[in-house]
Amino acid sequence: MSEPKRVTIPYRVPYADTDQMHVVYYANYLTLFERGRNELMRACGFTYRELEADGNALPVLEAYVRYHTPATYDDLLEIVAWIDSFKGVRLKIACEVRRDGHLLAEGYTVHAHVDSKTLRPARPSQAFLAALGCLAAPADAPPQ
Amino acid sequence: MSEPKRVTIPYRVPYADTDQMHVVYYANYLTLFERGRNELMRACGFTYRELEADGNALPVLEAYVRYHTPATYDDLLEIVAWIDSFKGVRLKIACEVRRDGHLLAEGYTVHAHVDSKTLRPARPSQAFLAALGCLAAPADAPPQ
Amino acid sequence: MSEPKRVTIPYRVPYADTDQMHVVYYANYLTLFERGRNELMRACGFTYRELEADGNALPVLEAYVRYHTPATYDDLLEIVAWIDSFKGVRLKIACEVRRDGHLLAEGYTVHAHVDSKTLRPARPSQAFLAALGCLAAPADAPPQ
Amino acid sequence: MSEPKRVTIPYRVPYADTDQMHVVYYANYLTLFERGRNELMRACGFTYRELEADGNALPVLEAYVRYHTPATYDDLLEIVAWIDSFKGVRLKIACEVRRDGHLLAEGYTVHAHVDSKTLRPARPSQAFLAALGCLAAPADAPPQ
Repeated sequence: MSEPKRVTIPYRVPYADTDQMHVVYYANYLTLFERGRNELMRACGFTYRELEADGNALPVLEAYVRYHTPATYDDLLEIVAWIDSFKGVRLKIACEVRRDGHLLAEGYTVHAHVDSKTLRPARPSQAFLAALGCLAAPADAPPQ
Repeated sequence: MSEPKRVTIPYRVPYADTDQMHVVYYANYLTLFERGRNELMRACGFTYRELEADGNALPVLEAYVRYHTPATYDDLLEIVAWIDSFKGVRLKIACEVRRDGHLLAEGYTVHAHVDSKTLRPARPSQAFLAALGCLAAPADAPPQ
Repeated sequence: MSEPKRVTIPYRVPYADTDQMHVVYYANYLTLFERGRNELMRACGFTYRELEADGNALPVLEAYVRYHTPATYDDLLEIVAWIDSFKGVRLKIACEVRRDGHLLAEGYTVHAHVDSKTLRPARPSQAFLAALGCLAAPADAPPQ
Repeated sequence: MSEPKRVTIPYRVPYADTDQMHVVYYANYLTLFERGRNELMRACGFTYRELEADGNALPVLEAYVRYHTPATYDDLLEIVAWIDSFKGVRLKIACEVRRDGHLLAEGYTVHAHVDSKTLRPARPSQAFLAALGCLAAPADAPPQ
């Protein structure tokens, strides 16, 4: 896998995201991560909506967030997402939330690529792997 | 329709529901209303899950909230719900949010009883109307 | 008051906003309305953050939504907001949610302009009224 | 520290918590964890509201969730919470979400005990540590 595609999107914090500690409530970072993942897939040319239309899904197996500095109301955040690894049916996406370039929070989600009907692991299509830049590159081939 | 069944449920406010004004964020009252509706239907002996299993749904057409006094973190609220009217396929449910009996917010939601496949209006079943106490009572019959 | 300023912002629907009816959950429209209000004030040159810095607040007194057609996951919505009226300390903001120009939902919120310390009604500053275009215009003056 | 106090609370899943995959949206488990923490502290006789009244706070430094089986609409869940460790100003709380005793998700949050004004680490009061059962027990004393 070559250098992973990294997508950055802007996000303006509404009152809805804050709590009485005057900061973005900790659970809402997972929604920010989702927004990052959605746009990462769109930037790769294979949206999550298309993945679902193909009968697949990427349910979350694990989620982790490390909080450094709180985001506050009306902040214009940057959400950064990239594929950390994609092995078999297990996809790990890394995410950061920044403000003016300064890291506020970081973490990851781990997903299983499954058949959305049976929820059983399903081999990702070549088209999906290619779009995400996760196909074994020629450089990975054994030397000849 | 006789005196409508009125259901009251307790609800403890988490940090998640608050915003930086130190009160419950205004949109979250609609979620409280939903909790009230769910328990109203359960108390009537016909849960929303059963309604869906029967192939029906009650999408929201209108929602209104009037805010009197803010709810705050860790408050133990009372959510009160009752059927205001059920005419044809149009169901109106009233709701109040109270704390120590004192009214904090009130409002209503209007729903259409529809077929969940086609989303077209669908006549409610007699079982559902009976459960909700919304069948025409004998007293409504013309005098003889 | 002259023709009110109308602001339109884009909004991409995440999974987080949906419910199991495959549509945006009804309470989330109030958060969309808030996003619209925030950007309306920013476009007027007087953000809500500035209003708070001045010691004021605009708590919600009433909220109403009428739902026409559901928004769904990954839709790119347009949120439209404008000032419906501003009389004394009572501000009414109208809002629409559209997709490809088609109206999905509409409604309004009513706010009181208050002192954020005492929560008592407080006369809006001339600067705020001017920014919102809500100062009595010369055309409103009696003919001479 | 003796065997930690373990608190279990019931939670009924509203539509609001679900997403279009027909399961509870993954970020909402962190709100369930918060509900568990709140009741854990209440059961210990020292609520988070009291902690705040004392001028302290417990902002989240880290959060982790591992998802096993999805929760769905109208499920009556059990949220279980207990103190995993409390060293210096660093408090780790473990949490599980169960349905009919079956584990659906588990994880933890790590908090810093801080002064809510300065947000700097602040030594927890003896009263708080005692309430949480986190004072060094006599058995920890050196043998004589």
